[in-house]
Amino acid sequence: MVPAKQDMPQTSLARRDFLIKSGAVIGTAAFALGDSDLVNAETTNVAPLDPNLPLEVPQWTRSLGTPTASPYGKPSTFETKAVRNLYPGLKDTMSAYSTSPLQELDGIITPNGLFYERHHAGVPQIDPAQHRLVIHGLTENALIFTVDEIRQFPAVSRVHFMECSGNPSFLPPWGKTAAEVSGLVSCAEWTGVTLKTLLDEAGLKPQAKWIIAEGADGAAMTRSIPIEKCLDDVMVVYSQNGERLRPEQGYPLRLFVPGYEGNTHIKWLRRLHVTDAPAYSREETAKYTDLMADGKARKFSFVMECKSLVTYPSGTQKLTRKGLHEMRGIAWSGHGKITRVDVSVDGGNNWTQARLQEPILTKALTAFRAPFEWNGQELMIMSRAIDETGYVQPMLEQLIDERGKVSFYHNNSVQPWRVSSNGEVTNGRA
Amino acid sequence: MVPAKQDMPQTSLARRDFLIKSGAVIGTAAFALGDSDLVNAETTNVAPLDPNLPLEVPQWTRSLGTPTASPYGKPSTFETKAVRNLYPGLKDTMSAYSTSPLQELDGIITPNGLFYERHHAGVPQIDPAQHRLVIHGLTENALIFTVDEIRQFPAVSRVHFMECSGNPSFLPPWGKTAAEVSGLVSCAEWTGVTLKTLLDEAGLKPQAKWIIAEGADGAAMTRSIPIEKCLDDVMVVYSQNGERLRPEQGYPLRLFVPGYEGNTHIKWLRRLHVTDAPAYSREETAKYTDLMADGKARKFSFVMECKSLVTYPSGTQKLTRKGLHEMRGIAWSGHGKITRVDVSVDGGNNWTQARLQEPILTKALTAFRAPFEWNGQELMIMSRAIDETGYVQPMLEQLIDERGKVSFYHNNSVQPWRVSSNGEVTNGRA
Repeated sequence: MVPAKQDMPQTSLARRDFLIKSGAVIGTAAFALGDSDLVNAETTNVAPLDPNLPLEVPQWTRSLGTPTASPYGKPSTFETKAVRNLYPGLKDTMSAYSTSPLQELDGIITPNGLFYERHHAGVPQIDPAQHRLVIHGLTENALIFTVDEIRQFPAVSRVHFMECSGNPSFLPPWGKTAAEVSGLVSCAEWTGVTLKTLLDEAGLKPQAKWIIAEGADGAAMTRSIPIEKCLDDVMVVYSQNGERLRPEQGYPLRLFVPGYEGNTHIKWLRRLHVTDAPAYSREETAKYTDLMADGKARKFSFVMECKSLVTYPSGTQKLTRKGLHEMRGIAWSGHGKITRVDVSVDGGNNWTQARLQEPILTKALTAFRAPFEWNGQELMIMSRAIDETGYVQPMLEQLIDERGKVSFYHNNSVQPWRVSSNGEVTNGRA
Repeated sequence: MVPAKQDMPQTSLARRDFLIKSGAVIGTAAFALGDSDLVNAETTNVAPLDPNLPLEVPQWTRSLGTPTASPYGKPSTFETKAVRNLYPGLKDTMSAYSTSPLQELDGIITPNGLFYERHHAGVPQIDPAQHRLVIHGLTENALIFTVDEIRQFPAVSRVHFMECSGNPSFLPPWGKTAAEVSGLVSCAEWTGVTLKTLLDEAGLKPQAKWIIAEGADGAAMTRSIPIEKCLDDVMVVYSQNGERLRPEQGYPLRLFVPGYEGNTHIKWLRRLHVTDAPAYSREETAKYTDLMADGKARKFSFVMECKSLVTYPSGTQKLTRKGLHEMRGIAWSGHGKITRVDVSVDGGNNWTQARLQEPILTKALTAFRAPFEWNGQELMIMSRAIDETGYVQPMLEQLIDERGKVSFYHNNSVQPWRVSSNGEVTNGRA
């Protein structure tokens, strides 16, 4: 069970961890270097180590490395697990998705190379010089913009998460890893122009109530956004984590709709049609609606509700020693800021408050951490997030009671991880 | 001159910009689509556009794109300028550096692939399973850690800039672009363990005053850090922007010393030797000291002082139209938070306050923006940052008065950019 005493000195984790390792501690008597030797050693950059110290000068210190300045860097070749993966067994790679390897990531920024993907007709390779964005419909002026023109408007930068509405579905099979369970969420710093700036430029007519956004991909992905949201915090973005959008994230322009389900963030944005009614397009009628037990569907369930996920320990990982460990995870809410995350190691019978990592930003991932003890007993680990509206992340059973079992999207329920007596971690649902 | 009225509505920039473009505005009469046509159009995802609208359905909307899920993504092949570059004319690529293309970047996060590099013996390719970190010297225990053991300590994540102390030097030739002038600064979210946690684990002896950090590269890069700083905010980091450190950033472990000059952030960290005196190693005596006019050297000039840089407009860019533009740039201080940035278009005769982009984080890049008008006259554009200590970024002449002309490092002076009557932007120092 998680110790209630949150004031436990952090190093108690360290001490419990390391002083039991015979090889980890060397008697201080082994370090009788004289100051002169010391200074001489470091000033000549030769690094003679006391022979009693089990640290050899490695091969890479005895040779030159690879040259400076690869024009664009890559991760270490040893990081073979830090990759995006397709849903296991998926055949079609045109209408498909790939997940962020959440169990391999730290902090709140997702590197662009590992940001999750969801496409409906593959990834168009767009020449930004040929790309145009048009705004028309219920506006005083119809406007058409080049990408360079969009970049000349006053810019804003915001850190926000983005999540697919089907992350995960209500239905088995349940995933093995954190990525398989909930890897369709990522977070980045987005830079662009507020949609309000562009709409002020076009001049909205009084009848304007919705905006129908359309992508330039082969699916002409189309979603309807209420005008109030468009005038609030929606952006037309061209950069992600400092650099221009990647092709799979909508290069050269995408709509960004903070807190709304991912497929409203229209990629390869080509058209914004201002209307007095929603389009009821395929992707908001035949799909991306929530069918309830009574056969009715929830209409325009835009907001991604408050949610959290433990990434360590998580499925396929293994606890390799007894004693104190640090539980780690991420929390987020489409309604604003995360105010609290509770964690449990006994399946939700007892909860204790996790530490939240600053900065805590609105509609962004928030990292949380909490110590827990494992001495070989079975654990059922889970986290429960609360946002600034007071909303508490529900258990799956609560969602099923409300929506029935045919609902597919917007499963923001608590995710359990089972730790077995041998330390192996598996999905608590399985 | 920059208009003093900061309350200018942002769209005035947009309107002035776009309503002069004959091709950019189409009469609203061209958009007489009936609602039924409209709904039918979007619900079938066919996107018929009024023939009067100069927006053709592009080739990439008429075909499938590339498949989903490259395991690790890459930027668009059209982004040929967003690359790191060696110092022009540099021969040796083992002791060398490459710059971040600041003029191509937005916001405050530098993507890992474009984070600046500075190496003294190339980039070692280290197997994390073989890497060890030792802490010894004036400690109760000498400890040796594997990378996995380091990752098990309580973690922290912080967004901080890192900057080379020679960014740029006092000496001509002056660079052409923002990257050539000041591209040895970048910013990321770093995750690791505080050095204090590790030192508490080892147990510091009362005589402990300095820590000598050594890298596992061929240069055995070695720097001395005061114990007070080590116990304040120094980290041993293993992740950058969510993923593990890149090899060129110190994979698998590096020291991170917030606000200190870049080469104290020892990469490929192998050894932390706790001592009662600094090492006076090569890289803090023969180099990385500031020689004054009287022949004496500033000793241990660790902190990177408050600084800012305009990235748009900057060298080799061009203003392509008259009217209002948005000046953009970055500011940072090794002493804490940026509190204000002033900008000038007349070489510093008149200054006006720029808008700062939230979040404003300590020892991190802060983005600033300010409108300015250009109607074909020559401009001399510059920015001046102020940090929470009240320190004001100096002009180059002030630094030369204080340190003379032989000083090489720690040039944090105001950088001017000249806009010619034809709109071309060049380095104001040249």
